[in-house]
Amino acid sequence: MATTTSSEIEIRVPYADVDQMGCVHHSNYLKYFEQGRTELLRETGWAYRELEESGTFFVVTNAQCNYHSPARYDELLSLTTTVKRVTLARIDHHYELRRKEDGELISTGETTLACVDGNGQVIAMPDGLKRKKKQSRSVRS
Amino acid sequence: MATTTSSEIEIRVPYADVDQMGCVHHSNYLKYFEQGRTELLRETGWAYRELEESGTFFVVTNAQCNYHSPARYDELLSLTTTVKRVTLARIDHHYELRRKEDGELISTGETTLACVDGNGQVIAMPDGLKRKKKQSRSVRS
Amino acid sequence: MATTTSSEIEIRVPYADVDQMGCVHHSNYLKYFEQGRTELLRETGWAYRELEESGTFFVVTNAQCNYHSPARYDELLSLTTTVKRVTLARIDHHYELRRKEDGELISTGETTLACVDGNGQVIAMPDGLKRKKKQSRSVRS
Amino acid sequence: MATTTSSEIEIRVPYADVDQMGCVHHSNYLKYFEQGRTELLRETGWAYRELEESGTFFVVTNAQCNYHSPARYDELLSLTTTVKRVTLARIDHHYELRRKEDGELISTGETTLACVDGNGQVIAMPDGLKRKKKQSRSVRS
Repeated sequence: MATTTSSEIEIRVPYADVDQMGCVHHSNYLKYFEQGRTELLRETGWAYRELEESGTFFVVTNAQCNYHSPARYDELLSLTTTVKRVTLARIDHHYELRRKEDGELISTGETTLACVDGNGQVIAMPDGLKRKKKQSRSVRS
Repeated sequence: MATTTSSEIEIRVPYADVDQMGCVHHSNYLKYFEQGRTELLRETGWAYRELEESGTFFVVTNAQCNYHSPARYDELLSLTTTVKRVTLARIDHHYELRRKEDGELISTGETTLACVDGNGQVIAMPDGLKRKKKQSRSVRS
Repeated sequence: MATTTSSEIEIRVPYADVDQMGCVHHSNYLKYFEQGRTELLRETGWAYRELEESGTFFVVTNAQCNYHSPARYDELLSLTTTVKRVTLARIDHHYELRRKEDGELISTGETTLACVDGNGQVIAMPDGLKRKKKQSRSVRS
Repeated sequence: MATTTSSEIEIRVPYADVDQMGCVHHSNYLKYFEQGRTELLRETGWAYRELEESGTFFVVTNAQCNYHSPARYDELLSLTTTVKRVTLARIDHHYELRRKEDGELISTGETTLACVDGNGQVIAMPDGLKRKKKQSRSVRS
């Protein structure tokens, strides 16, 4: 049985993401990380879209990215998204982005997300989500 | 008294908008056009933000853009946005984007916007907006 | 043997592409179309990246998009990209974007690309590319 | 005589930058910070465009952002960009983004940029740039 605290997705670098130095513009990595979170959540049995529809939102309160090596147009990248810490109302993720072909490290990053309601007030995560998270963590250890 | 069916804004090309050919990526012109519409509307005495808050939305149903000459990072551009046609529930705009320094034509475009409610159903434009539009057109002729 | 004048790709709508109406922002469809072109070209045996490295560029000279129905966050879309016309230095593509789940038409579009050299001067397409294009068209008819 | 280690620009939040929560998507702040750097550099008498043309590039090696309060469509923001540290080949900047109307803190951030040549090799900053930077720092103290 696979653990669900870590997830891997592939990203094919679109032309529109690359700047005039021929490198993925540094702001785009935050978007890739977000895609990684969506898929990691999906693997735990949740669609973030449904969470929002039920009035539960996750907002980014902190993001950090280290740029190791440039990614270029049309390269196939592999992003590993990992849950680092879950508290009552927050989740920390870690990200590692590598070029698929040779494993070269492109970037690493971390984000903190807070669980909020429709008015932006911090709330506890939905019970089901916390249970799922705990379960997936216990699977791993 | 100035007519309000046409409006001009300046855009300084951000680094992030430029692709690896050193040119503004063609998708960004649609974003510039949108900024032109926001400012044109503001000059007629309306904030699009307030329209949305009151339940009136404008959705783009058609967009077209001709690319004449590339715009480059840090160039100062001048965008002229003009209302071409107003019907009960639709507005057509025309756009002309030029490099400020030498007047070189960068791109031209057209969009059609439909007025919809929160459910996406086409509705008549708010009375006040229609009046304002009519007024501004009569000023011009 | 599959014709290579048409190609289909899947797009999972990222959170970052959706605006405050809950719909994919209209400028993003031009980016999706570009991804469609990259994959269509790859299927004909060419990587656009290599073309650029050899000094051959394709620039968009005209783009047009009709928006039929909104696409929303996390929806899986299917984009069909088709070569409509190839001349000495230009290629016209047609695009049809549908929601995968129910086939709902999201948008259609067309672009014209011109083949240019590193200085932006229009040039004839590389011989190999023209041959490949002809070949793939003859396969279809 | 004004110090040039700090600079302030205004940003009108474009519709395209806002996500379905009605907030500026968190990746866009990195783009705003970049605009702040461009203008800060211009105020020291340098155009980053000319630096790139002369073969000197600045690449982001680290970026960090704290999100304090959401910014919304059409709000007018004020971004203060400050040089924190200059070494032989690196510059650290700090950013503070506030809503213009009420001074509400939107986000803060930091980036590290490395000076590289056209091949991505770290190089010493151009003499003139270092001198200008030193000068502006001595003015301040």
